[in-house]
Amino acid sequence: MKDLTTDSAVIITIGNELLSGKTVDTNAAFIARRLAEIGIKTRRTITVGDEKREIQWGVREACSAAKIIVCTGGLGPTRDDISKHAVAEYFGKPLRVDRDQLRIVEQKFRSLGYKEMPKSNISQAEVPEGAVVFSNSKGTAPGLLIIDKGTYFFMLPGVPVEMKALMKEDVIPYLKKRLDSGETVLSRTIRTTGIGESKLAELLDPALSTLKDPEVAFLPDLFGVDVRLTTKVKSKSKLSPKIEKIEKEILKLASEYVFGFDDDTLESVIGSLLIKHNLTISIAESCTGGLVGNRITDSPGSSAYFERGVITYSNNSKVELLGVDPDVIENKGAVSEETAIQMAEGIKIRSRCEMGLSITGIAGPSGATTTKPVGLVYIAISDGFGTSVKKLQLRGDRERIKKQAAQAALNLIRIRLNDKNLYRN
Amino acid sequence: MKDLTTDSAVIITIGNELLSGKTVDTNAAFIARRLAEIGIKTRRTITVGDEKREIQWGVREACSAAKIIVCTGGLGPTRDDISKHAVAEYFGKPLRVDRDQLRIVEQKFRSLGYKEMPKSNISQAEVPEGAVVFSNSKGTAPGLLIIDKGTYFFMLPGVPVEMKALMKEDVIPYLKKRLDSGETVLSRTIRTTGIGESKLAELLDPALSTLKDPEVAFLPDLFGVDVRLTTKVKSKSKLSPKIEKIEKEILKLASEYVFGFDDDTLESVIGSLLIKHNLTISIAESCTGGLVGNRITDSPGSSAYFERGVITYSNNSKVELLGVDPDVIENKGAVSEETAIQMAEGIKIRSRCEMGLSITGIAGPSGATTTKPVGLVYIAISDGFGTSVKKLQLRGDRERIKKQAAQAALNLIRIRLNDKNLYRN
Repeated sequence: MKDLTTDSAVIITIGNELLSGKTVDTNAAFIARRLAEIGIKTRRTITVGDEKREIQWGVREACSAAKIIVCTGGLGPTRDDISKHAVAEYFGKPLRVDRDQLRIVEQKFRSLGYKEMPKSNISQAEVPEGAVVFSNSKGTAPGLLIIDKGTYFFMLPGVPVEMKALMKEDVIPYLKKRLDSGETVLSRTIRTTGIGESKLAELLDPALSTLKDPEVAFLPDLFGVDVRLTTKVKSKSKLSPKIEKIEKEILKLASEYVFGFDDDTLESVIGSLLIKHNLTISIAESCTGGLVGNRITDSPGSSAYFERGVITYSNNSKVELLGVDPDVIENKGAVSEETAIQMAEGIKIRSRCEMGLSITGIAGPSGATTTKPVGLVYIAISDGFGTSVKKLQLRGDRERIKKQAAQAALNLIRIRLNDKNLYRN
Repeated sequence: MKDLTTDSAVIITIGNELLSGKTVDTNAAFIARRLAEIGIKTRRTITVGDEKREIQWGVREACSAAKIIVCTGGLGPTRDDISKHAVAEYFGKPLRVDRDQLRIVEQKFRSLGYKEMPKSNISQAEVPEGAVVFSNSKGTAPGLLIIDKGTYFFMLPGVPVEMKALMKEDVIPYLKKRLDSGETVLSRTIRTTGIGESKLAELLDPALSTLKDPEVAFLPDLFGVDVRLTTKVKSKSKLSPKIEKIEKEILKLASEYVFGFDDDTLESVIGSLLIKHNLTISIAESCTGGLVGNRITDSPGSSAYFERGVITYSNNSKVELLGVDPDVIENKGAVSEETAIQMAEGIKIRSRCEMGLSITGIAGPSGATTTKPVGLVYIAISDGFGTSVKKLQLRGDRERIKKQAAQAALNLIRIRLNDKNLYRN
């Protein structure tokens, strides 16, 4: 069974919507992540449109670069879905209706309450001769595997939830069984926020400048910079002393910016801290419009510590729901240190939580004054030790300002809960 | 100046973080969209890692497929940023420090409050011999253009905000000037929600089955299905009778599912409807945790119609902030038709808005009971004509259920405001 010695793959994503720019390709990242977890490195990703010539170019290039190819998209029932035909033709395998698959697809439509299956879906039961068929638990287009001269060519639907289920339930288990496991890739991601890429690189230079192994990559985005360490180990070891040593050095140099590791999110880290200290939190948002609440509640189980939120967009709602003094709004402004403080204290008192967080700012494009530019944001946090407030001047468009403000607000909770003078471990 | 007759491009995105799956590549979609707006069709997208051999393979394949290449990533100051070296070497152009660029980069660091520039940033002033340099208004790595045997090879930083600014301010204006404008691509996107891809395809079959021009593409995602019509027209016409005809037929066949066109979002459409009818809205969210408020407030100017939101995660907050009857929660449950109705009516009355919306449901993975599975969601809307409630049974993980519930809630507002028996045009 251990017949696959390769550790690299090529991903092909197919769809005019990807090349037109209407749709961001999230499938490639998901597939790459899952493959990496079993030690398969993605060498390239290729995106082509729903055109036979282009698809076949992609298949040819992929097959010449790797033995494992995962391809998504173009398996739907509509007229522009031609991936299966193009790939089957490339490998010289005619398409045949698979009776089992046809029954499964018909059954799915009945269970969805349809009297009969739309005729266009019959094509979804066609499979290339000799292909392995993986039934799709979330939809009607099955996953397919063509094995040809040592190349493993997987075809999956482009709908993310269907592709994800097939990757998890079929593709990954299938590959795992066949992989020759002489070496394993280990990786560790150290997640930071509140510092830019070049500043972080300088800060970490003493630890990284002469380093060859583990490999280091800086992965910046709007929310922070991830530092990823990668190394190869023999056998099935799950630990690498090399990675552990560098991780410790990085923590020493940049501890205040590190919020977590690997799959940690800022919201999951805050959730763990609140649970650890047995605290509940409520929030009062203005310019972020609910985004902070949305992020906090993305964590499963957040109802254990998140009591309520208010989105006080109007001045009136700040007065009614939080008890902000109308004179303060009148004299200092809705976007001011004073209002932010009253909002945080107001939500804490009214919700009877141990911690209250507030955000008020100008997300733009309108709303700026001569003294208060777009991107001016105040965040305040109130707890049993008092109330502190932070002023930010953010840049970018409306969505970017909302996202950065929410990130900074969540980070303020983390910093507060990690303050050893206030909260003991 | 009109020396470019090509209308196709290849996009190259470079970065180990893209191939590891840690980062979703949003740059390719943005670049493709901007190019499409000036009639340049993206033929392929290629993603490779920060390795010279791979980058040079990508450059070679791109140059053999198109005359316009836009490449992003790997221009940062850290040690894994090698794109400039790899590309310059491919084209046989040595790198030289550009004095003007060095001054600009140093000046940027001073204006950010640094005493001196981190040394690693000097490399950002190096440019391939003969390249056109586009100064980066949002960061320190300039955009570069290498012109070689009729190929226009643009290199942009991978940080989205920097790439976007350079595309808008430099690359697009530059290409526009040089394009031979014999033909223009016109496209129209008809946006639907509340119907699946295959059902929509069947519904539209009478209009589309024999259609050759315009070209039709179905672009499904979690939120709905876009139908995109594309055609080429001579000269600089901005209208196509062919597209207008098909658009009308599609509207006849599927009007109830169509919420907008092109860049319309469901939240922008709702905003326009609320302004048109001179109404204000407040919302009460439970399982969506602030996501509906976040989406409504993504629209600039939403403060004109969005008064407030409450995220009533605890039962207590439903009682205190919305006046929900504790006996109803006790007997019918927090996730019930009755609670949803009281939440919608409560937020409408307390905020003194004309319209109140509520969402309560089980986002999972925990919280389900024998009679109430994960994905059960009630949404209610209350206005001067009464209160209506809708039950949904959604599938997927926590984030997916939150997103679908928010989409359905926003769509309910749209349907209500489009009800000709209630709101006159």
